[in-house]
Amino acid sequence: MTNGKELPSTLEWRVHAADGAVEILLVQESGTSFWRLFRWMHGLVVAFLIKLWTFFIKAWNIGVTDPRKFIHCLKVGTALSLVSLFYYMTTLYEGVGGNAMWAVMTVVVVFEYSIGATLYKCVNRATGTLLAGSLGFGVHWIAIQCGQNIQPIILEISVFLLAAAATFSRFIPTVKARFDYGALVFILTFCLVSISGYRVDQLFRMAHHRLLTVALGASICIITSMLVCPIWAGQELHSLINRNLEILSESLDECITDFFANKDVRNVSNGYSNNINQAYKCVLNSKGSEESMANFARWEPAHGDFKFRHPWKQYLKVGAAIRSCAYCIETLNGCINSDIRAPETLKNHLKDMCVRLSSYSSNVTKELAIIMKTMTKSSSIHISIGQMNIAVHELQDALKNVPNQVVVQILQASNDGMKGETTNTRPLLEILPLATVASLLVEMAARIEVIVEEVEQLADQAEFRLACSNSKSKESQPIA
Amino acid sequence: MTNGKELPSTLEWRVHAADGAVEILLVQESGTSFWRLFRWMHGLVVAFLIKLWTFFIKAWNIGVTDPRKFIHCLKVGTALSLVSLFYYMTTLYEGVGGNAMWAVMTVVVVFEYSIGATLYKCVNRATGTLLAGSLGFGVHWIAIQCGQNIQPIILEISVFLLAAAATFSRFIPTVKARFDYGALVFILTFCLVSISGYRVDQLFRMAHHRLLTVALGASICIITSMLVCPIWAGQELHSLINRNLEILSESLDECITDFFANKDVRNVSNGYSNNINQAYKCVLNSKGSEESMANFARWEPAHGDFKFRHPWKQYLKVGAAIRSCAYCIETLNGCINSDIRAPETLKNHLKDMCVRLSSYSSNVTKELAIIMKTMTKSSSIHISIGQMNIAVHELQDALKNVPNQVVVQILQASNDGMKGETTNTRPLLEILPLATVASLLVEMAARIEVIVEEVEQLADQAEFRLACSNSKSKESQPIA
Repeated sequence: MTNGKELPSTLEWRVHAADGAVEILLVQESGTSFWRLFRWMHGLVVAFLIKLWTFFIKAWNIGVTDPRKFIHCLKVGTALSLVSLFYYMTTLYEGVGGNAMWAVMTVVVVFEYSIGATLYKCVNRATGTLLAGSLGFGVHWIAIQCGQNIQPIILEISVFLLAAAATFSRFIPTVKARFDYGALVFILTFCLVSISGYRVDQLFRMAHHRLLTVALGASICIITSMLVCPIWAGQELHSLINRNLEILSESLDECITDFFANKDVRNVSNGYSNNINQAYKCVLNSKGSEESMANFARWEPAHGDFKFRHPWKQYLKVGAAIRSCAYCIETLNGCINSDIRAPETLKNHLKDMCVRLSSYSSNVTKELAIIMKTMTKSSSIHISIGQMNIAVHELQDALKNVPNQVVVQILQASNDGMKGETTNTRPLLEILPLATVASLLVEMAARIEVIVEEVEQLADQAEFRLACSNSKSKESQPIA
Repeated sequence: MTNGKELPSTLEWRVHAADGAVEILLVQESGTSFWRLFRWMHGLVVAFLIKLWTFFIKAWNIGVTDPRKFIHCLKVGTALSLVSLFYYMTTLYEGVGGNAMWAVMTVVVVFEYSIGATLYKCVNRATGTLLAGSLGFGVHWIAIQCGQNIQPIILEISVFLLAAAATFSRFIPTVKARFDYGALVFILTFCLVSISGYRVDQLFRMAHHRLLTVALGASICIITSMLVCPIWAGQELHSLINRNLEILSESLDECITDFFANKDVRNVSNGYSNNINQAYKCVLNSKGSEESMANFARWEPAHGDFKFRHPWKQYLKVGAAIRSCAYCIETLNGCINSDIRAPETLKNHLKDMCVRLSSYSSNVTKELAIIMKTMTKSSSIHISIGQMNIAVHELQDALKNVPNQVVVQILQASNDGMKGETTNTRPLLEILPLATVASLLVEMAARIEVIVEEVEQLADQAEFRLACSNSKSKESQPIA
């Protein structure tokens, strides 16, 4: 009994925040069960509040990083407030026969972040609704001609067949990419028209009002998204490709600097390397967003520097070429963390060549980024490519000329070996990481040339401006 | 005038099919303008029909490759036919107060390919509707208390604020992954309830009927998708990871065989190599589908071998480890296409080691695939890992022992060089591709061990069965 009283008589309420900090909320002696309950509740509430607070901080940071997200939210709020006016103004409400709900629904469903996505949904919704509506009327008319008894059967069969067919069409890649939402709306509208047609008598009037309200909602969306701080999917895609090129160039620089730096330095700068790592990993995984942006960009009208039939498909090819380079960097990054150290003489012999090649390669990508950013054809890119190719040959020459030096080492080693001394020289194994880095750099240079080709095709198709100051020198420069 | 009659008097109508074939439809002498128009129309129609036909063939093949897609379409058709019965049966129709439309809408919007996706949408729709509905009622009640004049203002402000907040929440990654659809439904319902509440008098009765119909539609969806040929997102994810492991192992085998085969053979077998290429490219780009499947799988109840709290998140880690290996294969594939040929003696010296290492590595991945397929912990995997590690050391030893052979060559070469003869030996450059392949194979082995770790964690978390026959030998095998 007395032992029971000697249990630790204080209770701590610790709250674990998301950042790992532990906050001690209450340190009190254990009292009555009421107090315990109170403390428990109190701890729970405080824990919840802290969680909520960290969530808000996180959310706020997302908006601060990209304020356009805040603006988008305000735009959605504005569009909905506008469309809800239809309910409050009696004349407007009666004008659309009480179908104002459809306008609200359209705004909620159709309003997307980029204009391209909004237009894609609007056009799909309009096309799907019209197509399914007219087909629904047709089927309904046929069903009526067949008499009261067969009518439901015909309607059921038509719903089954058309819904199944439209659902299947969503599995076809081309339909999925361009008309996925349209197919969904088609099924929805067809079902509503053909089935509810069985009940609603004034079908035509209802359809008319519904189309009117949908058009109204859609136009409010389009106007709001175009007039207030517009976000173009095409512009976003263009910037993404540009940013990926910049990341590629930075990662390459970082990687090679890292490899030739001392191990100690490498460990200290680990934080920075990790940042770069994260950056190029975004490039590795950007395929999905590139594809959806290119898909939405097609629906957009001419804007800024982008004409109506801007070659958005070509951006995907540029993106794929960039990713293929990023795969090389991924592998490079793995290889340079190897513990095998190359012999210093060899390393010094090749270091300059490797660093030069990587810096020229990274120069070419930087220039490509500038071409994309300014949308101006560059003539100096050919000089850079030339330099890069010369660096490739120099590296290959350096590799050719190595043996004379290695021979000396190897001979020394084998002489030592013959003398019965244990040697630790393992020439081929030791040069392995260096050889891999050299090989991957050469491979990278080849892949960067593919990016150049794709960007040049893009520049031709999209009719990028010619750089005025360099237009003369361009002719004299052979295309690398 | 006579020249005009000497114009080519035949007209051909060529139709270009999608497979590149050109079909000449009409070769007739040019006649009256009526005939020309007729021919033009005829050509147009035939061209359209051929295009339609190729489209159908393509679509049919998609279904034949994966018949579950056909079945899914039939399921959607069935669910819609079932729900449309509500319109035809007067008692049912009146039971839900004429709100049968909402059941149809729910089925169309909620029915997805996998059960997880359907459940995700159902739960999100239900939660979003309930939350927004009650909030809408609350706001509506407050607005009524404030009087006729202020009512619209309060409603407008609440719509603006809540719609903006809910839209913003969709930008937060955790909300986006789990409650994106819920947020959309929340905005929609809140707007409809709080705004249309201003008009509809019997708000409570409407809400009751609407909830009933939505629940009805949702349950029809869930029952149909679970009873008829169910497609579980979890099972799909499990199979995807398993397939990716198999592809990895096949690609690795293919790559190394390719490298050590003769160039001529390589060109002949190009078609096959390309197939492999396509396959591992799927692995490179599977991140998106893995994430969405893991997300949907969380909503699924226990099914088959998967318990309720199956560690779906761990699958993403396994997937990432597999992809990291696939990046290596991508680079490897680029390097082996190099035109630099390694000296035959060196190639023969290292060939066996490389092939052995790659086959052991591929063995480990195959065993991992079997572990995943059978969901049975394997003890022989540790033997395979041991063999792989031995092969790594053997390859490294072989690289250490190379010099003696290379020295002979190099000495011969430099002796020849001293004699004034032009030699073509470029030892270090020539061994570059071979050194890269060896280096990447070692890197691959390290990355495969990461996959093993992740799969073993998965096996522990998901409590995979122990292999009965090998349970004894497991203890005696050290963990590699």
